[in-house]
Amino acid sequence: MADALDQLKARMTDQHGLADIAYFLAWDQRTMMPPAGTGHRAQHIALLQRIGHEKLVDPEVGRLLGEIDEATLDPESDEAGLVRLTRRMYDKAVQVPAELRGEMALAAAEANPVWVKAKETSDFGLFLGPLERNVELRHRYIECFGPQEEPYDLLLDDFEPEMKTAEVTRIFDEIKAELVPLIAELRDRDVDDSFLFGRFPLDRQVALDHEVVDLFGHRPDTWRIDPTEHPFASGAGIDDIRITTHYYEDSLKSLFSTMHEYGHGLYEHQIPRRIANLPIGTGASLGLHESQSRLWENLVGRSMPFWRFFYPRLQEVFPDQLRNVELERFYAGINRVEPSLIRIRADEVTYGMHVILRFELEQDIVNGRVELRDLPQRWAEKMDEYLGVEVPDDANGVLQDTHWASGLIGYFSTYLLGTVMSVQIWEKAQDDVPDLEERIERGDFATLREWLADNVHVHGRKFTPRETLRRAVGSTIDAKPYLAYLKRKYGAPVAA
Amino acid sequence: MADALDQLKARMTDQHGLADIAYFLAWDQRTMMPPAGTGHRAQHIALLQRIGHEKLVDPEVGRLLGEIDEATLDPESDEAGLVRLTRRMYDKAVQVPAELRGEMALAAAEANPVWVKAKETSDFGLFLGPLERNVELRHRYIECFGPQEEPYDLLLDDFEPEMKTAEVTRIFDEIKAELVPLIAELRDRDVDDSFLFGRFPLDRQVALDHEVVDLFGHRPDTWRIDPTEHPFASGAGIDDIRITTHYYEDSLKSLFSTMHEYGHGLYEHQIPRRIANLPIGTGASLGLHESQSRLWENLVGRSMPFWRFFYPRLQEVFPDQLRNVELERFYAGINRVEPSLIRIRADEVTYGMHVILRFELEQDIVNGRVELRDLPQRWAEKMDEYLGVEVPDDANGVLQDTHWASGLIGYFSTYLLGTVMSVQIWEKAQDDVPDLEERIERGDFATLREWLADNVHVHGRKFTPRETLRRAVGSTIDAKPYLAYLKRKYGAPVAA
Repeated sequence: MADALDQLKARMTDQHGLADIAYFLAWDQRTMMPPAGTGHRAQHIALLQRIGHEKLVDPEVGRLLGEIDEATLDPESDEAGLVRLTRRMYDKAVQVPAELRGEMALAAAEANPVWVKAKETSDFGLFLGPLERNVELRHRYIECFGPQEEPYDLLLDDFEPEMKTAEVTRIFDEIKAELVPLIAELRDRDVDDSFLFGRFPLDRQVALDHEVVDLFGHRPDTWRIDPTEHPFASGAGIDDIRITTHYYEDSLKSLFSTMHEYGHGLYEHQIPRRIANLPIGTGASLGLHESQSRLWENLVGRSMPFWRFFYPRLQEVFPDQLRNVELERFYAGINRVEPSLIRIRADEVTYGMHVILRFELEQDIVNGRVELRDLPQRWAEKMDEYLGVEVPDDANGVLQDTHWASGLIGYFSTYLLGTVMSVQIWEKAQDDVPDLEERIERGDFATLREWLADNVHVHGRKFTPRETLRRAVGSTIDAKPYLAYLKRKYGAPVAA
Repeated sequence: MADALDQLKARMTDQHGLADIAYFLAWDQRTMMPPAGTGHRAQHIALLQRIGHEKLVDPEVGRLLGEIDEATLDPESDEAGLVRLTRRMYDKAVQVPAELRGEMALAAAEANPVWVKAKETSDFGLFLGPLERNVELRHRYIECFGPQEEPYDLLLDDFEPEMKTAEVTRIFDEIKAELVPLIAELRDRDVDDSFLFGRFPLDRQVALDHEVVDLFGHRPDTWRIDPTEHPFASGAGIDDIRITTHYYEDSLKSLFSTMHEYGHGLYEHQIPRRIANLPIGTGASLGLHESQSRLWENLVGRSMPFWRFFYPRLQEVFPDQLRNVELERFYAGINRVEPSLIRIRADEVTYGMHVILRFELEQDIVNGRVELRDLPQRWAEKMDEYLGVEVPDDANGVLQDTHWASGLIGYFSTYLLGTVMSVQIWEKAQDDVPDLEERIERGDFATLREWLADNVHVHGRKFTPRETLRRAVGSTIDAKPYLAYLKRKYGAPVAA
């Protein structure tokens, strides 16, 4: 069996390597590649994915898994984690014919440029055909797994393993019940954030983003930050972390976006070296990844302790804009709540409702409770109901996100699940390190970074997301800390 | 057989794709990668090479090749070219056990950092062990192919397919006989090039390099130029060409280096689209590649017609340095001949002797005619004999190039073979386009570019290098045009 384990390890190291390379090629595509390189790049990524898939569904992997008796392995061990994860990946992968996978990849590739054009012209009608095709293929994907009580579970599971639709619904309903009235209450508050939209010279923003990443901390010579259209974090391994941001001359958005991507980058950076080349050597799920980005962006980056430490430096970098803005006004400004149309520009409070809206619509789509052509109207109705905003056109409504064009149905909820978990993780860190906020106020970020390494990152993907969270905070996912945090931070009038 | 051809094409498309990806990863490593990423990168490149090799030596490839009757294919066709090349690659690859390939790759990877250190400390003794190991492995590699009349042929063939040691020796001896006295004659000429070492602000150099590449011509949105330590050209396909350069604030070197890499880039850029994803969709050999880079760097970039057109612009960009330097002085300066220690900094005339020295030493190494520990002394003797320069230390002598540390024995001669071919190709272009120089003097580079596309680049790697050259210029490789060109350009006193 030791031999079977070694063979499995070697095969899955290759499989993970191919995935890492494909992931890295996507970084280059979005930061460095000459625009016309798209054709080669799509072929190369598809080639790596195909070979990686062949390596995973190879009958030899099934044979090795059959030979390994998990009961004899220490369940805490890397080996047990690798076998559990490989079994899970293998069992799912072998259900889906290569032909269908190819069709799904092709349909997504074809839908994407149509979506770009539809968004540009704000014409949902243009996108309807490709969207129907993507949805139809998702149905065929679900059918591969036999009859399902809740078909959406299968899609969700691809992004947040073992999470169930019923559980997400319960959590999101709890959030909705509190958020909708909170937003209604906050929307009329008059908070000045005009100073956040002055002129912030790009070279100083670039230097500042590097400074913040240095301050938060990482091993030198292992990171880079580059500009891109839509920020993301990527890399080629724990020693090669690449985060991206989008600089706007007239706003400080890039600073918060950098903190967000830092959280993603740090998660991958702090995966234990001994498992870094294996499929268990990465974040446990999209949700847990988002818990890390949200933690650094919001719990740290929009907190008073952080800005008590860092605001003088920010004023020093942008004196013209901020010299006359005192800390309290700045803090209120960066935490201004205002219902708006676009998810990726939403504040900490309204963000959740953008996700809940998509989660609900996705279930209606998958369960055939909505005609796809009616999506723009359903979108507008929910935006009105949840956020009280009117959707002027498709570009600012149903067409704003790329996910559905890429066939990613079931993805959105991980954003809010991650946000919910970020507060649970933050509070557990505070329990363990009672003076955590004081430390941040003194510019000590190492304590938090190390706590995250020891309590979250250490597990990589050895356990399910649920088990990873349980090990980190001692409980399952729970919206209450998140809701209490929002009410504590935003419930009391900011400007009294 | 049509089916066998299709299958072979599909397999070799994958094989070529994997090679292209590995090639691209090396670009990133030398331009963008955080330094600590080396470990991941080495693993990823090795993974791609291993899978690519497995695809090539797969018995199924042998079976398909057996099924295809080349006699029934049009020898001009892409299919015939693909079958010829695949057969050649396959026949060589299956002779070498995977284990030996692994040992060679590992030994090179281990030798490289030792070489870096040896060069830094100018201590050849440090490098002796790893060099011995690389040489020993090359001997084992040669043995895989059975008894050889001239073992060095096998190494040469890896870099310049079907080129023989005897032929190179004949060409190089002919060159040596003419160059050594020419260099002795030129070395005492007093040519002022001090104005090439003023202050050339980096931002203007960057803009100028882009301007020159735009001027020489390429499809927009398909190229990029980045700084690196040792310039090279790379890319991920015909629509994604990446050249690199090294900027020096105190010199114009980067400009000529950019022209050189432009030639490499253009070759790959102008490969016909219909074969671009196949192994035949690349340059025919290292030598032919170098013919293209040398052509743009020297025959165009150091020519009077080009500078009649471009010198006013250069003076405009660097007025402080060049305002008072007239064209003739500038031309003499960029063509100054001066024997020196370092190959990559050598002028057009002395360059060849640096290569010949290495070619001769490599044969002595492979045939056991020199003890490796005596290499520094042999190096110094030849440098004195050929160039009349004294080698002060190993760093400026035998340790200057990375090739032997990377196990690349047999590579050097392609530099000079390419230079020789560049003049043959240039003169054939002039035969076909009698006013070629006048066109260049008018800033028309499209004519040359298109002539190269139609006469050299069009063939990709469909034919052997010898056959490719024959199709381009109507003859085999010949040093006479090259020697005549040098004597024409340099033989008459520049400053009379």
